[in-house]
Amino acid sequence: MKICIIGLGLLGGSFSLGLKEKIKEIHVIGVDVNPLHVEKALQLGLIDEATPLEEGIKKSSLTVLATPVDIISQQINKVLDILPETSVLTDLGSTKEQICKIADQHSKRNQYVAVHPIAGTENSGPEAAFADLLKNKIMIICDKEKSSPQALMIVELLSNILEMRIRYMPSDEHDRHLAYVSHLSHISSFALGATVLDKEQDEQSIFDMAGSGFSSTVRLAKSSPQMWSPIFVQNKQNISTALGSYIQKLQYFKEIIDREDAPATQALMTQANDIRRVLSGIEKGK
Amino acid sequence: MKICIIGLGLLGGSFSLGLKEKIKEIHVIGVDVNPLHVEKALQLGLIDEATPLEEGIKKSSLTVLATPVDIISQQINKVLDILPETSVLTDLGSTKEQICKIADQHSKRNQYVAVHPIAGTENSGPEAAFADLLKNKIMIICDKEKSSPQALMIVELLSNILEMRIRYMPSDEHDRHLAYVSHLSHISSFALGATVLDKEQDEQSIFDMAGSGFSSTVRLAKSSPQMWSPIFVQNKQNISTALGSYIQKLQYFKEIIDREDAPATQALMTQANDIRRVLSGIEKGK
Repeated sequence: MKICIIGLGLLGGSFSLGLKEKIKEIHVIGVDVNPLHVEKALQLGLIDEATPLEEGIKKSSLTVLATPVDIISQQINKVLDILPETSVLTDLGSTKEQICKIADQHSKRNQYVAVHPIAGTENSGPEAAFADLLKNKIMIICDKEKSSPQALMIVELLSNILEMRIRYMPSDEHDRHLAYVSHLSHISSFALGATVLDKEQDEQSIFDMAGSGFSSTVRLAKSSPQMWSPIFVQNKQNISTALGSYIQKLQYFKEIIDREDAPATQALMTQANDIRRVLSGIEKGK
Repeated sequence: MKICIIGLGLLGGSFSLGLKEKIKEIHVIGVDVNPLHVEKALQLGLIDEATPLEEGIKKSSLTVLATPVDIISQQINKVLDILPETSVLTDLGSTKEQICKIADQHSKRNQYVAVHPIAGTENSGPEAAFADLLKNKIMIICDKEKSSPQALMIVELLSNILEMRIRYMPSDEHDRHLAYVSHLSHISSFALGATVLDKEQDEQSIFDMAGSGFSSTVRLAKSSPQMWSPIFVQNKQNISTALGSYIQKLQYFKEIIDREDAPATQALMTQANDIRRVLSGIEKGK
């Protein structure tokens, strides 16, 4: 089996490594606009061969778009144009509504399966890839009724092989929910990192006093701007709503702290404590 | 050596366990207004004996206030009143300026050493305590010139025994910095948890899609409201400034996402990426 992975970063590289660990006779062709990424991916064994885009797609029975989402939007219909009639296309983008809308216009739409693996770290590039990244994680498959049963089954089987848990969802619902449970976390963390770094310019060594709680909340601020900027643009409306609610909540929090309203701050925190239930659910899923 | 710990939660309990592991002949007397905490602390071996407040203080050469900071403020001068002339008092509160200002009024101020161990988890109560909580963590000692050399040395030695790294700082500077590197993280996390839980009321099972990034940013929302509410009140002014800057940063982030200004979003995130330097410093310190 030959598969072509376009975009040799954390996710594309880990997808490849995960499959190579489980399927002996797989041959992975890598494509990346960055020659350093290609070189590194060959060196690290993420891929078996590097080719130009068109060649990779034509030689493979599965092509995986694992680039930032703006590139996926630009490329998806060009890739479908080239895609052999017997091949399958999937993408691993973190937004799905706009990408699906674009692909919906294409005559080969049913050869495409829109997925989003809920997995990542704050690191990026081929060196960040590892075989177990996707294991036990959620694989969301969007708008499955628009994919042919065979194409869908191929992607489901690959998800099974990677030991992922599959969920099905309309692409618009996916984006609306992800704004809350992923994109907002990243924005919160980027903004927190930037705020504290601004402060550091005036006062040296404030980080001497930072503990694990601080690390935990700003960890995502290490994430790749090249990857996240297009996600924010593509999911602008949902993110704007979620971020607006978050800002309102913080403004209210500031008001009740400013007026030393202890019962109100305790009530807000007690409400937030219910996140314990949610987090234990996420942990259990692991 | 007899020491008295007032407040048998995560921090008081861990302080006791850490010392009991290193000092064989130590005898720890526990005091807590909550009889269930006292019972649990005896059961778990956090303390050797439980007594009423006054008895515990009078019998001990060191008393440690490990209650929420509002209780520390209320109690500190009463405890100093009772404190034997040859004993030392310390407190483990997360705010220092107001507590020090209160103690500064007392004639026995030099028997008191103001500290803040930068350590904690999102869990609370005696069951959350563990011997290694303080190990390799920072111990901030505030306004050390106001403590007698002997009292200071006793607290420094205990910090050494717990394998902590000591930093010295004026109490007002402590509170200003902690607003950024700890209190703001907690507010950000509580508000994020509350925002996403609000959303969940309208749409079921959004958490099915939450991954490790979400967990990391909302983990602190599990923290104790009883502990944090008085910290927010005591450090109101610094927190208000820090939180105001954070809200402004988020509002700017929302604006640039709303107008799809990719260069500006990338610039903000690239600036925030510099947190990598800071976090690697925190990790190294561990």
